[in-house]
Amino acid sequence: MMKRAIFPGSFDPFTNGHLDIVNRGLSLFDEIIIAIGHNTTKKRHFEIELMKSKIENIFSNNNKVSVKTYNQITAHYAKENEANYLLRGLRNITDFEYEKSIASFNKNLNPDLETIFLITAPEFSNISSTIIRELHKFEADITNYIPFEL
Amino acid sequence: MMKRAIFPGSFDPFTNGHLDIVNRGLSLFDEIIIAIGHNTTKKRHFEIELMKSKIENIFSNNNKVSVKTYNQITAHYAKENEANYLLRGLRNITDFEYEKSIASFNKNLNPDLETIFLITAPEFSNISSTIIRELHKFEADITNYIPFEL
Amino acid sequence: MMKRAIFPGSFDPFTNGHLDIVNRGLSLFDEIIIAIGHNTTKKRHFEIELMKSKIENIFSNNNKVSVKTYNQITAHYAKENEANYLLRGLRNITDFEYEKSIASFNKNLNPDLETIFLITAPEFSNISSTIIRELHKFEADITNYIPFEL
Amino acid sequence: MMKRAIFPGSFDPFTNGHLDIVNRGLSLFDEIIIAIGHNTTKKRHFEIELMKSKIENIFSNNNKVSVKTYNQITAHYAKENEANYLLRGLRNITDFEYEKSIASFNKNLNPDLETIFLITAPEFSNISSTIIRELHKFEADITNYIPFEL
Amino acid sequence: MMKRAIFPGSFDPFTNGHLDIVNRGLSLFDEIIIAIGHNTTKKRHFEIELMKSKIENIFSNNNKVSVKTYNQITAHYAKENEANYLLRGLRNITDFEYEKSIASFNKNLNPDLETIFLITAPEFSNISSTIIRELHKFEADITNYIPFEL
Amino acid sequence: MMKRAIFPGSFDPFTNGHLDIVNRGLSLFDEIIIAIGHNTTKKRHFEIELMKSKIENIFSNNNKVSVKTYNQITAHYAKENEANYLLRGLRNITDFEYEKSIASFNKNLNPDLETIFLITAPEFSNISSTIIRELHKFEADITNYIPFEL
Repeated sequence: MMKRAIFPGSFDPFTNGHLDIVNRGLSLFDEIIIAIGHNTTKKRHFEIELMKSKIENIFSNNNKVSVKTYNQITAHYAKENEANYLLRGLRNITDFEYEKSIASFNKNLNPDLETIFLITAPEFSNISSTIIRELHKFEADITNYIPFEL
Repeated sequence: MMKRAIFPGSFDPFTNGHLDIVNRGLSLFDEIIIAIGHNTTKKRHFEIELMKSKIENIFSNNNKVSVKTYNQITAHYAKENEANYLLRGLRNITDFEYEKSIASFNKNLNPDLETIFLITAPEFSNISSTIIRELHKFEADITNYIPFEL
Repeated sequence: MMKRAIFPGSFDPFTNGHLDIVNRGLSLFDEIIIAIGHNTTKKRHFEIELMKSKIENIFSNNNKVSVKTYNQITAHYAKENEANYLLRGLRNITDFEYEKSIASFNKNLNPDLETIFLITAPEFSNISSTIIRELHKFEADITNYIPFEL
Repeated sequence: MMKRAIFPGSFDPFTNGHLDIVNRGLSLFDEIIIAIGHNTTKKRHFEIELMKSKIENIFSNNNKVSVKTYNQITAHYAKENEANYLLRGLRNITDFEYEKSIASFNKNLNPDLETIFLITAPEFSNISSTIIRELHKFEADITNYIPFEL
Repeated sequence: MMKRAIFPGSFDPFTNGHLDIVNRGLSLFDEIIIAIGHNTTKKRHFEIELMKSKIENIFSNNNKVSVKTYNQITAHYAKENEANYLLRGLRNITDFEYEKSIASFNKNLNPDLETIFLITAPEFSNISSTIIRELHKFEADITNYIPFEL
Repeated sequence: MMKRAIFPGSFDPFTNGHLDIVNRGLSLFDEIIIAIGHNTTKKRHFEIELMKSKIENIFSNNNKVSVKTYNQITAHYAKENEANYLLRGLRNITDFEYEKSIASFNKNLNPDLETIFLITAPEFSNISSTIIRELHKFEADITNYIPFEL
């Protein structure tokens, strides 16, 4: 059976840490959908369509990876897309506690859905989209943290 | 390509929590080797050969799961068995911090080896082999925590 | 002396986890006041009066439990109500660190006030009002997490 | 109904932090049994009978507190003593994770047993019996940390 | 070489905990600049100029300490002020995880900048500016937590 | 005044992570004594005199660093050596909780002694002497983790 995973996130922006998780996940899954959550109540710093096209560029030669936007419960979105896996990275214990709770809710909403975790590599473990946005507002250099120019 | 995972541990004893991780891992891997680490300097409470045969009984009808004992670096053992994945459960932040360090060493010893984490289901998250051993020493009832009689 | 406890929270919504803490607390206290904090600057998802009446329904046959709303410092509110205890549940380390700080402030504001903690049962430990609100916004099924219909 | 609590520990030694928990627990319980666990496989630094008599001296004028030694599963010991509560202090997240697991096992072994937690006051939160033993081995001054002379 | 450190924060308000860190830092550094971050998008509770003058009063007799406001990336601000050190206090693991990530970004932005941490003394470890603001809104007494009147 | 720091540890073995902390500490202190704790009850894997000479070799051209062994309370040892600072690295929250407690005891034993923390750089944050010893027992390659041959 085809193994399709959703890699969900707000990706505001998509970072080198996210890229590493996708690349490592490719050894495990036949297909990965990078799904950019579109939360209408939370204002983004980087436009969602811009981010989508930037990520698509990275994987333009890899037909195992696609990029989509969505605006619904992730567990439902996975079902609609016939994906039985969520792929998530864990950087630290704050991530862990949050993901533990979310994974439990998702399992309840969709018992066929399994969340698979990879621990972030040390060189990416301190990267945070929140801080990158902050740096970008002050026009600081963020090229070390993202896999494209912004 | 065949996806073979090692599920390493001392399994002193193998618990319902371990069983849940193996069962959930089976949706992801073609083959799982439950590998009981044989540390000659650390005295076991339950004999390793007894534990091996108890676990084998559980999976006697499932040819995707095998049980072995080993006495070497896990990353080397995985290579010898042509397994590209380690499967691990995460119960809490103590597990997380430990696994984070171990996964990093393993990646260094064997760059082809990816450690895949599942978060333990809530009903198993407080089960600990250490406490089960303690209960067993006092002849308390441990049948709620293990998938066989001991 | 009568042992009266305040169980404070925003209860937006009150969950099965909260219910479990109140029920377990009843073995310890003669009276529990479920006190819904009314923070005028933080917009609620579920109306405070609706929540109050829903919780009251659950305990309509139990005269040891009452439900109130309040809009002041919890330590002061406890004093006004001649309650010497706060009852709190602990799910995880994020809760622990937060409660540790709050309990210390409360002790300072009201030295007679003791905060009593119960650790959330495993089956409720991943439930979070924040996530339930999120699910409800997307019209997902939340009946597994709350002790009434909403 | 009488509210009797067990305050279990190895108390090697009993510290000012332990004393604070007992004193605060006295506002909640009618009776507290300080129960010194007697683990035959773990060598103590301070003799158990010495520690028992030192603690008894502190509470010699308080008939709500008694001191005992025991050598069995704590949940069973509580039942034998008709105590429905365990009293425990939480200093930090390491304590929290450990207590969370133990409390869950105890609830299973004895469903009538409720574990009640108090968070250690800041001035005692860094005190550890392990470090006090280490200081004592080097003949350093430990009078700041314990409520009697040793 | 002169050792100049920046002690950055929003100081809304500056607390006894902050004061303790500065005083202890003075044994290490020749000069400390208390730098109040001026984030235009985050509304303060206490006016920045009021806070600046209150802090200046405390150190009016100490020419090793100065107080400034700034509105840029901290790592850049440190460079401009020829400060090679950031001084930070750690209260708990939430602080630790946050500071770990920030320190890594700062090192990247300014490789000459070293972040020096002191662990907050127990008596100040539960003080939080967020809770003090909350108390102040309700006109509760906050004199125990801050080194001046507000 | 001369700023002399003790960098205490068992260093069994001294790792690249330790080396990084010493090198970064040199920007702060005039002199650093690497002090290898000699605990007679805990058996070492690498001989203390071997380790001492290996570390001395690294710093043979740097007269700001010396290497010593000691067998007493660290706070007393610091006083004897007229060192007012302890230098410590923090890798993760387990380190943090342990160091928080130790620093508090040290401050009590020697009020003039300040513990200064640096957060371990990401590339060293997963290195652990315990795991290196384990690898070495199995004759695995450890050259990536230590600054000399063993």
